[in-house]
Amino acid sequence: MSARMKLGVFLWATGHHIAAWRHPKTHVTAGIDIDHYIALARTAEAAKFDMIFCEDAAGLREANVGIASQTSRSIGFEPISLLSALAVQTTRIGLVSTASTSYNEPYGLARTFLSLDHLSGGRAGWNLVTSASPIEAANFGATGLKPHADRYERAREFAEVVTGLWHGKASGHVGQSFSVRDPLDLPSSPQGAPVMVQAGASDVGRDLAARTADVVFTAAQTFEEAKAFYDDLKGRMAAHGREPDDIKIMPGVAPVVAETEAEAREKFEELQELIPDDVGVTLLSSYLSISDLWRYPIDGPLPELPESEGMKSRQALVVEQSRRDGLSIRQLARHFAGARGHWRIVGTAAQVADELQARFEGGAADGFNVMPAYFPGELDAFAALVVPELQRRGLFRMEYEGTTLRAHLGLKRPS
Amino acid sequence: MSARMKLGVFLWATGHHIAAWRHPKTHVTAGIDIDHYIALARTAEAAKFDMIFCEDAAGLREANVGIASQTSRSIGFEPISLLSALAVQTTRIGLVSTASTSYNEPYGLARTFLSLDHLSGGRAGWNLVTSASPIEAANFGATGLKPHADRYERAREFAEVVTGLWHGKASGHVGQSFSVRDPLDLPSSPQGAPVMVQAGASDVGRDLAARTADVVFTAAQTFEEAKAFYDDLKGRMAAHGREPDDIKIMPGVAPVVAETEAEAREKFEELQELIPDDVGVTLLSSYLSISDLWRYPIDGPLPELPESEGMKSRQALVVEQSRRDGLSIRQLARHFAGARGHWRIVGTAAQVADELQARFEGGAADGFNVMPAYFPGELDAFAALVVPELQRRGLFRMEYEGTTLRAHLGLKRPS
Repeated sequence: MSARMKLGVFLWATGHHIAAWRHPKTHVTAGIDIDHYIALARTAEAAKFDMIFCEDAAGLREANVGIASQTSRSIGFEPISLLSALAVQTTRIGLVSTASTSYNEPYGLARTFLSLDHLSGGRAGWNLVTSASPIEAANFGATGLKPHADRYERAREFAEVVTGLWHGKASGHVGQSFSVRDPLDLPSSPQGAPVMVQAGASDVGRDLAARTADVVFTAAQTFEEAKAFYDDLKGRMAAHGREPDDIKIMPGVAPVVAETEAEAREKFEELQELIPDDVGVTLLSSYLSISDLWRYPIDGPLPELPESEGMKSRQALVVEQSRRDGLSIRQLARHFAGARGHWRIVGTAAQVADELQARFEGGAADGFNVMPAYFPGELDAFAALVVPELQRRGLFRMEYEGTTLRAHLGLKRPS
Repeated sequence: MSARMKLGVFLWATGHHIAAWRHPKTHVTAGIDIDHYIALARTAEAAKFDMIFCEDAAGLREANVGIASQTSRSIGFEPISLLSALAVQTTRIGLVSTASTSYNEPYGLARTFLSLDHLSGGRAGWNLVTSASPIEAANFGATGLKPHADRYERAREFAEVVTGLWHGKASGHVGQSFSVRDPLDLPSSPQGAPVMVQAGASDVGRDLAARTADVVFTAAQTFEEAKAFYDDLKGRMAAHGREPDDIKIMPGVAPVVAETEAEAREKFEELQELIPDDVGVTLLSSYLSISDLWRYPIDGPLPELPESEGMKSRQALVVEQSRRDGLSIRQLARHFAGARGHWRIVGTAAQVADELQARFEGGAADGFNVMPAYFPGELDAFAALVVPELQRRGLFRMEYEGTTLRAHLGLKRPS
């Protein structure tokens, strides 16, 4: 546990709520509006967030193209181009982008992120994903998604080559999947090396994180889930010669905050009522990597799931919640659609801060990746209401301690 | 021939002259100085240039790593991240980046360039290269450079898929090298489609350009070479159902300009004297794709060259010049090192304008890709002296005609 919590803001077009695009205070083309993103980045920087974070997937986000046009992230910038633009419109906040180890090569990826790092004066981070989605595979000439174990074996070597290149040590690498002769055509990073972020929660994903990650994003609905994940991952660090504090664990949180609890609940219900059933069920199908959820009665229970090479840990969370709470497909779809599988808090600034503080001080989180329900409104509300409350409690910085992302996060500068 | 000439500026760290990094008015870390690039882009935009252009190669530029630290472009930003940053620091100028068809996949590349296009309001262009250098191949796990014909076959399909994706027509493509299922997760381009740029000068390269390119960069020392290339390429357009004016041919030009001819010559000689022999010969070796040029007497003639899968047209130009002028290796090295194989003009604004006008009105060029000897000095000089002279003669715009790169270039909006 760090002295003060770390905060990221997860950018996502019109917002993280699945019906954000229907909210009267959003505009549907936000995903390709650079002025929109510049305003969000500046709001987050003024509030002293550690970083902004962009997910990525090179393909249409939902399995059903017809539904894709009805979700909050059907269109959007490619994140490296977006964050490079934001780099020169901000001065302090960290810039973390997702990029896939399945559809890139390590030399090119290492170079691009180090370039972003130099552009921003040492504020770049790479969120490593192995790309679990069959949707992306179909756009990169593959005949099918690679098995989970194969993806992680490639990812392990990929991460080793990338960090080696960042540290000037990978020249001459010849391995199972990659060979690289040259060093990069860039000097070393202003922050030692770009920050390495991961989000894999499977056993092999956790091992890769314990070996190589500086930050881990995770999804945990309950304190117990968050605490179990936290303790497990911190406990794996020693085996890789690292200290528990060398990795920052930041669960996603989807807050809806207002001056009063009633007002917050009203804002949330307004969003929930905007979710069409077909969108909710399609999103749930996508989470579960199964395409035929439509065949089952919407008011009945979740069916037994076939084995999948998709995102195993996420699937397990959904199934567990469904069984625990006895939810129908419709209920589960709406519930998950509202927070995209993340932890939701609806209430006043004090109530939100209480919950964050409990997980932070309870040893279940080093900080949080904030997923505003819609942009800019809910980011504005978090920045105006929750951040000052956290600062008042001494839980969050008043000013940036340094100029690099690694400094914000309190990470050691790599040798 | 267009009514007015088109002008690009080719960005290159400290400058195009091989000794630019030693010039007292440059700084050696210019290649990773974003403020340096922002200033250059704004100078070019104030002078109404059509575009800025970035080359790219994912590897160390020169075969000899020791020499790489002694050249003008040993370090530098990855160009997509650079141009994305420049997109939000400029409002009108076109932004063209090189990217390889050998080390990318078409879905990812089409998406990144369309993202840059949206970021910039329709100002992006892609310079397609097949990556002739064995240096890059060694960083992407290849056991050797692919043969010229194979690279171009891949490039042909790659370009087809990319332009198809930009036009919303490539979903479901299944071809020899690539298969792509989805459309892109971006709406169509503000300019119809990003501008397609090419520079291949071999027979198969010219055919690919005639089929798909909007702009062609080329290297031509003499009027006759430039005219022959121009007529050949324009003559190939009909076979692909296109008009000659659908492609803009822009040879590189390396000017050194001053108020007086004597002053210009003095500036140029100052740069030439800064070229170390070892750097000149190493650069020439790299152009020729042969590694043992050192074995031959530096004051003797160029040896017979082995067959190479490298950049055939460039090699032919060098060999031809060497034989024509009876140059020694040292002389050829210094001569080529000074302009990197491009057309050099040293003189007053009127003299430079005369030469550009002669090639433009003589039907040997639609415009020029300007390669300043060092930055920012020689770009500043060109903008302050040559541009007003061209404008006075009615050869160059006073104001931008539109807001997109396609509008600047006078290209049809693709249907």
